[in-house]
Amino acid sequence: MLIAKVIGTLVATRKHERLLGSKIQIIQPLDHRGIEPKGDPFVAVDAVGAGVGERVFVVQGSGARQGLDDNECPVDATIVGIIDDINC
Amino acid sequence: MLIAKVIGTLVATRKHERLLGSKIQIIQPLDHRGIEPKGDPFVAVDAVGAGVGERVFVVQGSGARQGLDDNECPVDATIVGIIDDINC
Amino acid sequence: MLIAKVIGTLVATRKHERLLGSKIQIIQPLDHRGIEPKGDPFVAVDAVGAGVGERVFVVQGSGARQGLDDNECPVDATIVGIIDDINC
Amino acid sequence: MLIAKVIGTLVATRKHERLLGSKIQIIQPLDHRGIEPKGDPFVAVDAVGAGVGERVFVVQGSGARQGLDDNECPVDATIVGIIDDINC
Amino acid sequence: MLIAKVIGTLVATRKHERLLGSKIQIIQPLDHRGIEPKGDPFVAVDAVGAGVGERVFVVQGSGARQGLDDNECPVDATIVGIIDDINC
Repeated sequence: MLIAKVIGTLVATRKHERLLGSKIQIIQPLDHRGIEPKGDPFVAVDAVGAGVGERVFVVQGSGARQGLDDNECPVDATIVGIIDDINC
Repeated sequence: MLIAKVIGTLVATRKHERLLGSKIQIIQPLDHRGIEPKGDPFVAVDAVGAGVGERVFVVQGSGARQGLDDNECPVDATIVGIIDDINC
Repeated sequence: MLIAKVIGTLVATRKHERLLGSKIQIIQPLDHRGIEPKGDPFVAVDAVGAGVGERVFVVQGSGARQGLDDNECPVDATIVGIIDDINC
Repeated sequence: MLIAKVIGTLVATRKHERLLGSKIQIIQPLDHRGIEPKGDPFVAVDAVGAGVGERVFVVQGSGARQGLDDNECPVDATIVGIIDDINC
Repeated sequence: MLIAKVIGTLVATRKHERLLGSKIQIIQPLDHRGIEPKGDPFVAVDAVGAGVGERVFVVQGSGARQGLDDNECPVDATIVGIIDDINC
């Protein structure tokens, strides 16, 4: 999984019906210490109530659907946890 | 998911039967603000009626099939929403 | 999906039984206009009767199995259409 | 699969319920001899009781769920073995 | 799929039970002519009895499980054929 920070939101009124009500966020991947930006931001759906500025971890690929407990939802990245601490 | 702009269409009369009737589009990935091109264009199937020039978001991988509500369709990228706004 | 050109074939008599009879091809990815080579060639199975020199589009990942209508076939890239035209 | 070394742990009290009790680790990918770091560290869940400093191999993508024997767990990387030796 | 050469083996006594008895190999990806190394070696499980030095092709992602005829095996790369010849 990827460590990232929530940096914004995406608004889309016309979208797949399985995404209605989803919180679609823009995330910035971070290094493994959760400090420096690393790579380009992209779009993820939130499963844990994360807000802008919070550090999270994100599952990508088919596991993103499990993150939403909906195996028929068209997603490929889901926020599945809010980070308290990283010990390296 | 990826932010992109629809920039063209692909015509193929000989294709897998599950793709008959699909709108096959060429998309240009954009940065997370939805402004600058970022990376190379590729092919995606449209699930939301997006037209050339519109900004969309795209699910890749196995979730692309969910975007088409057809788990047996041979796709790996589907347009699942039209972007109204991005707040970063 | 990826735009590519068929550039050769791979011969393997010892292979997984689900691949027996499959046409295993070498494909060269192309740019989104279907003109210039872009990236490295790789191996794909053909589902639409494409020949060497033809421009095709290719599904990667789990959708490659749907391209062969065989969810138990060990493939990760399948040619699912022959390109007539690209309008960009 | 990827060869890596466990270099730390991630603490998250608010996470998807399927991840409760999981050991979430930070891993550093290594070269194929298991000696030099190669690429950026990322997050994986442990299925074999690996500790910090141990060399492991990691399955990514949908196979990560099989590594946890839980097809509904939202993960994309799981440690599935501890390396004794590499013969190259 | 990827063209590669088997260059070594990985020994792990502590591993996921579905991997017990599996032949875990180190493979070096090759160019599409099967001649020059291209990219970094990684770990794959063997499904066709390939030995060190042989040229093979490898399925990655969820198709790797089909290569082992075991949809619950935690793998993401499986050797599914031994190459006789490449015609480009």
